[in-house]
Amino acid sequence: MAERFSPPPLAGEGQGGGRRRVLIVGAGFGGLACAKKLDGEPVDVILLDQHNYHLFTPLLYQVATGLLNPSDIAYPLRTVFRHSANVRFRQATVTRVELSNKLVRLDAAPPLAYDYLVLATGSTDNYFGNQEVARVSFGLKSLEDATRLRNQVLTCLERADAEPDPAARRALLTFVVVGGGPTGVESSGALTELMAIVAGKDYHQISRAEIRIILVEGTDRLLNTFSVRLGRYAQRVLTRRKVEVRTGALVKGANSHSVTLSDGTAIASATIIWSAGVRPNDPIGESSIPRFRNARIQVDEWLRIPGSPGAFAIGDAGSPRVGDRELPMLSPPAMQAGRYVASTIVDEVRGVQTERQPFRYLDKGTMATVGRNAGVTHLPGGLEFTGFLGWLTWLFVHIYYLIGFRNRISALAAWAWDYLRHDRPIRIILAASPGPKR
Amino acid sequence: MAERFSPPPLAGEGQGGGRRRVLIVGAGFGGLACAKKLDGEPVDVILLDQHNYHLFTPLLYQVATGLLNPSDIAYPLRTVFRHSANVRFRQATVTRVELSNKLVRLDAAPPLAYDYLVLATGSTDNYFGNQEVARVSFGLKSLEDATRLRNQVLTCLERADAEPDPAARRALLTFVVVGGGPTGVESSGALTELMAIVAGKDYHQISRAEIRIILVEGTDRLLNTFSVRLGRYAQRVLTRRKVEVRTGALVKGANSHSVTLSDGTAIASATIIWSAGVRPNDPIGESSIPRFRNARIQVDEWLRIPGSPGAFAIGDAGSPRVGDRELPMLSPPAMQAGRYVASTIVDEVRGVQTERQPFRYLDKGTMATVGRNAGVTHLPGGLEFTGFLGWLTWLFVHIYYLIGFRNRISALAAWAWDYLRHDRPIRIILAASPGPKR
Repeated sequence: MAERFSPPPLAGEGQGGGRRRVLIVGAGFGGLACAKKLDGEPVDVILLDQHNYHLFTPLLYQVATGLLNPSDIAYPLRTVFRHSANVRFRQATVTRVELSNKLVRLDAAPPLAYDYLVLATGSTDNYFGNQEVARVSFGLKSLEDATRLRNQVLTCLERADAEPDPAARRALLTFVVVGGGPTGVESSGALTELMAIVAGKDYHQISRAEIRIILVEGTDRLLNTFSVRLGRYAQRVLTRRKVEVRTGALVKGANSHSVTLSDGTAIASATIIWSAGVRPNDPIGESSIPRFRNARIQVDEWLRIPGSPGAFAIGDAGSPRVGDRELPMLSPPAMQAGRYVASTIVDEVRGVQTERQPFRYLDKGTMATVGRNAGVTHLPGGLEFTGFLGWLTWLFVHIYYLIGFRNRISALAAWAWDYLRHDRPIRIILAASPGPKR
Repeated sequence: MAERFSPPPLAGEGQGGGRRRVLIVGAGFGGLACAKKLDGEPVDVILLDQHNYHLFTPLLYQVATGLLNPSDIAYPLRTVFRHSANVRFRQATVTRVELSNKLVRLDAAPPLAYDYLVLATGSTDNYFGNQEVARVSFGLKSLEDATRLRNQVLTCLERADAEPDPAARRALLTFVVVGGGPTGVESSGALTELMAIVAGKDYHQISRAEIRIILVEGTDRLLNTFSVRLGRYAQRVLTRRKVEVRTGALVKGANSHSVTLSDGTAIASATIIWSAGVRPNDPIGESSIPRFRNARIQVDEWLRIPGSPGAFAIGDAGSPRVGDRELPMLSPPAMQAGRYVASTIVDEVRGVQTERQPFRYLDKGTMATVGRNAGVTHLPGGLEFTGFLGWLTWLFVHIYYLIGFRNRISALAAWAWDYLRHDRPIRIILAASPGPKR
């Protein structure tokens, strides 16, 4: 099965005395893991991202619900590689990738040639073509999304507190979370905690009973990548904590003050939070490379883009076919793929003659939190646990993976605070913070 | 000198069983101090602000230079008064104040009638009519200003790192701070610390020697509300830390890539930070009430707006004549005035028969920091100190006045971190975070 690589031709410009140049597009989990693994190796690495920070996306909902600061989950990429001799970060937006020319075009700088390309461009919200829903929904894929949602939730409470019209008030106090996967479960769990803190307290005119948090899921149960038992546990905990769980329901339409479900039910709501699906994101555009039905690039067993020497796609952007499926769009396969590709490149530039094994994703388990003291953890081999132990596992794994010592203690301190005081203190509405004026 | 108040007529609607309604417009230092003093008293208080938080403005430059998070210096106002029985906060923008009708008009809610009005609307940047400079300058009056400036500074570094054209690069790496008062001194001191941390490290292509920070002051010395000795000390420290101080120079013009001084010098610079003056801000507009030349409302010795029963103006918005001068536009006189007006109102509603003494501002001293280990403190009576002791005094006074236990420990932790590690960790470019989508 395994085949040997033929070394790619050198790029015309021969950067750094003939050293090969690796271009990594995207500094999410996959791209960052790849760049770190290449740090100190005999290649020149340029890591590109449209933002100047690595974002720990699994905790975005904690920013949106006032527990964490944006900077707690965003780590400046230049700081990660400040002591590196061969990895350089550049903030740039990639406008086009020319696989045949081995060239990446940028928005505001000259194009970059590469010897190796690692496409790690992640994914974006998938509204399955429903423009109307896309227009009014709040996603949770970027820091801007998270602060926008925090502004929205707090502004709804502000307005409801002063709103005399009962119908308008009801819409302002109803929050619809779409999608019962980990993000939807965690978001609705955190929202219900926030509401318990502020209803009747910060907002004297609003009782907790008036606030509705509705979690809508298309299949018949929550967390359907986990076992039935874990999904039921999550549903039980959320229901006890006053989240209305509606399974077997899809969102059909939405406007500024209501959401319509597939069974025709209309829910008066000013806030829809979208966590019902993502789609892969890459700047290649139309070309003949193979893709899965969701447009994810279909790479070979060595994560190479077929027909494009030196080019790899990893993480949410690309997957090999595994049986009749793809790899899950989660951070662990992305990180493993990033490190695998880095090793492949290093072997090749070092002239290692042994055969390269195909990429194998090692599932170390998955987990989600439903909120305070309640988490679910699934380990390979079928071991599962719920409740406080599930939550504690979730907490420590997440804090462990938060990059950077400072972020880790800052997030840990925030959690300790939350745990001891039942507080979500970052309840500020921070309006437009645009970029440079000129 | 002292005169008695005649009780104001009750508002038509007689809120809360005939209790008087106090409307406080603005929740800065003055408005917040007034509301806190009225907490628990037999009046109904409505505190209005366009933001949902009290902002500790003296530390905005620490947000702009990556030391503090926005939430470290912004405290949710509803949380301040969550246990209060008579003080209510509402986020609203006041569009007009009708002193003769005792009515305040809001942007998106019915107007509010009052028995007592406390105008505490603060101040805004004063560009002295220079629209061109206003358009391209970065102010430091709001959290949005601070995050915008942080985005600008970091974006300039990002761009310069990749910029091949020497002239464009020079403009990107030159930061002009206008105004040598405390804000200008503190901002340029913090900027030079940030640059020492990142130049040649996060940004490998940028050496510290290429970066210019220029502090422009119109008079012949820095900190001219302090003594000559303290001003000279600040100048000496800043110069040693590589800030170019230009006294006796005014900014005449500016465009996207350069600043022109009054002597004709043109400085290539993409970033102008404005701290050369503020002007009072109030929503009264044209009316016959007396004003100082800078448009600040001239109140009487009891801080009442002449001819407008029940209306007071405090802080940057209003001042009595003190000899041939006004009160300084600083937080201590605003806070003292807020508490004074609160006492006046309480005495009146309680029917206290003694004469009310005119307002007297008690100067407890002023201070500023030039940066790490270097501050200046002036105490009444002429006692002054500089250096580490001046800095320590400044640090503890500022942390003491930061509202809220959590903000205080969070800011203290950030400083401790900065002090031990020489770090300004919050180097993220966080783009537009607009308000609600709908």
